[in-house]
Amino acid sequence: MYALLFDGQLRLVGDYPQPDLLPGEALIRPHLVGICNTDIEITRGYMNFHGVLGHEFVGTVAACHDPAWIGRRVVGEINAACRRCPTCARGDESHCPQRTTLGINRRDGAMADLFSLPLACLHEVPDSLPDSAAVFTEPLAAALEILERSHLRPTERVAVIGDGKLGLLCAQVLRLPGCEVVVGGHHPERWDLLRTLGMTVERAEQIQGSFDVVVDCTGHPSGLAVARQLVRPRGRLVLKSTFASDSPLNLSMLVVDEVALLGSRCGPFAPALRLLDRGLVVAEPLIAGSFALRDGLNAFGAAAGKLKILLEV
Amino acid sequence: MYALLFDGQLRLVGDYPQPDLLPGEALIRPHLVGICNTDIEITRGYMNFHGVLGHEFVGTVAACHDPAWIGRRVVGEINAACRRCPTCARGDESHCPQRTTLGINRRDGAMADLFSLPLACLHEVPDSLPDSAAVFTEPLAAALEILERSHLRPTERVAVIGDGKLGLLCAQVLRLPGCEVVVGGHHPERWDLLRTLGMTVERAEQIQGSFDVVVDCTGHPSGLAVARQLVRPRGRLVLKSTFASDSPLNLSMLVVDEVALLGSRCGPFAPALRLLDRGLVVAEPLIAGSFALRDGLNAFGAAAGKLKILLEV
Repeated sequence: MYALLFDGQLRLVGDYPQPDLLPGEALIRPHLVGICNTDIEITRGYMNFHGVLGHEFVGTVAACHDPAWIGRRVVGEINAACRRCPTCARGDESHCPQRTTLGINRRDGAMADLFSLPLACLHEVPDSLPDSAAVFTEPLAAALEILERSHLRPTERVAVIGDGKLGLLCAQVLRLPGCEVVVGGHHPERWDLLRTLGMTVERAEQIQGSFDVVVDCTGHPSGLAVARQLVRPRGRLVLKSTFASDSPLNLSMLVVDEVALLGSRCGPFAPALRLLDRGLVVAEPLIAGSFALRDGLNAFGAAAGKLKILLEV
Repeated sequence: MYALLFDGQLRLVGDYPQPDLLPGEALIRPHLVGICNTDIEITRGYMNFHGVLGHEFVGTVAACHDPAWIGRRVVGEINAACRRCPTCARGDESHCPQRTTLGINRRDGAMADLFSLPLACLHEVPDSLPDSAAVFTEPLAAALEILERSHLRPTERVAVIGDGKLGLLCAQVLRLPGCEVVVGGHHPERWDLLRTLGMTVERAEQIQGSFDVVVDCTGHPSGLAVARQLVRPRGRLVLKSTFASDSPLNLSMLVVDEVALLGSRCGPFAPALRLLDRGLVVAEPLIAGSFALRDGLNAFGAAAGKLKILLEV
């Protein structure tokens, strides 16, 4: 089968072996797969992952030992956990030390004609939700994880630093409780969307003031420094970005100002699907283009610095 | 009057001018003043503070425009806030951007025959509480601030890294909700106290396992690295230490493991007084020695690396 893989270099291969159908898992035929910044980072060495890329998908269950699943249209959580260890028993399956992660860690990803995931990871997509929106379930869930990890009060002022794919989703999520949301970015062509949704947008370095919650979606240490300056004493600084290298941060300032630094990663799929289906988060304006899987190398070439590039399988 | 001050070097002077009595303030005659690691750091340049040192005290109100306060035995919060700005209105007086801080920032401290503080900062000490315990109110309040800033569940496992003055107070506070508490230290002569109070103690680098909450009380970047290793995914890492320099920290690990990094500083005095008065926290075993104020230079010489050294005024 065709697969887009990274084994030290990004390659499209036509004779990749089909995955085996393991007990409790499903083979899935993807319709659309999103290219995430994490995929691009993997091609630069992040996670030392070698294998098929891709973890944002919508597809159809092609094979499964439980016939009820066959033919269903699904999205899927990317962490395949053991569901037996103390971490899983606590409900922290996405942190299971035994986990494999779709297209990121010890599990081939979705940029192929077929891939596998445990049934426990799958969520059926409502008929009303088109593929072009459902493919955003995974990154939207990651944005929603901010609300899972911290109580956001409707009276709070929030700044989102970064107007990339993740920043646009985080900003939309953080406006939902009624908060005042200011987005700091560098791409004015994306700002009409945010303004239409009731948010304020400025160039990141021009934002003034003191915010209860600041979310760094820039992916750059310099963005973190901007975010740090904007958070009020006793406020919360949320990190959504993974950096390849250590970042110097004046931790004494965190103590003196009692700022809480919250890391946030993968999030809950069911509420993400509900928000997309209710139209409370708009995803399709974030699509910058789409390519056939067999044109995947060009797709990656086009993806850096862009909004969402999709692969059609 | 006599005063122990830092103006580039630590000096005892006998002719320091008495403070003026300002409206809304009290002049206080200290009985005991504790030497804190922050005092020692100030003599190394921290905060660029020049003035009289000392912020942990118990004393008597000597002068005040409100006669009801005169003669009362008091401890006092160290941040003198404006009580008019938005930060104060939110209840965050200890973060008031206009604040002065006793013996730390733009306000002479308590290591003198007389010093001043706003009445709003003062708390009367119960008759049942001796000076030798009351002088620990300020550092105990700083330890209690951990419970103000984060919900600590009785079922959680807590590690405190550091068996210095702050570590011994933090460990005592964190055992109060019923949590299992493991202390990592380097001073075996202090461990009997902790064990008597029901805690487990080990050498810091030998602690194994995964903790829900880890508190770094070491004051060293190396301690922070030890603490980081011990916190479970989705756990909390509490910083009590202020470092002079930036600390490299792999922030991606905080994102991947969704660890919350919580800074914590000054805390609430009223519950600290209640805990001391109820005997739920023992402070007097932490006293390593006491010196007369006029012997203050020797007191500072003796204080580094020791438990609490007190000055008798």
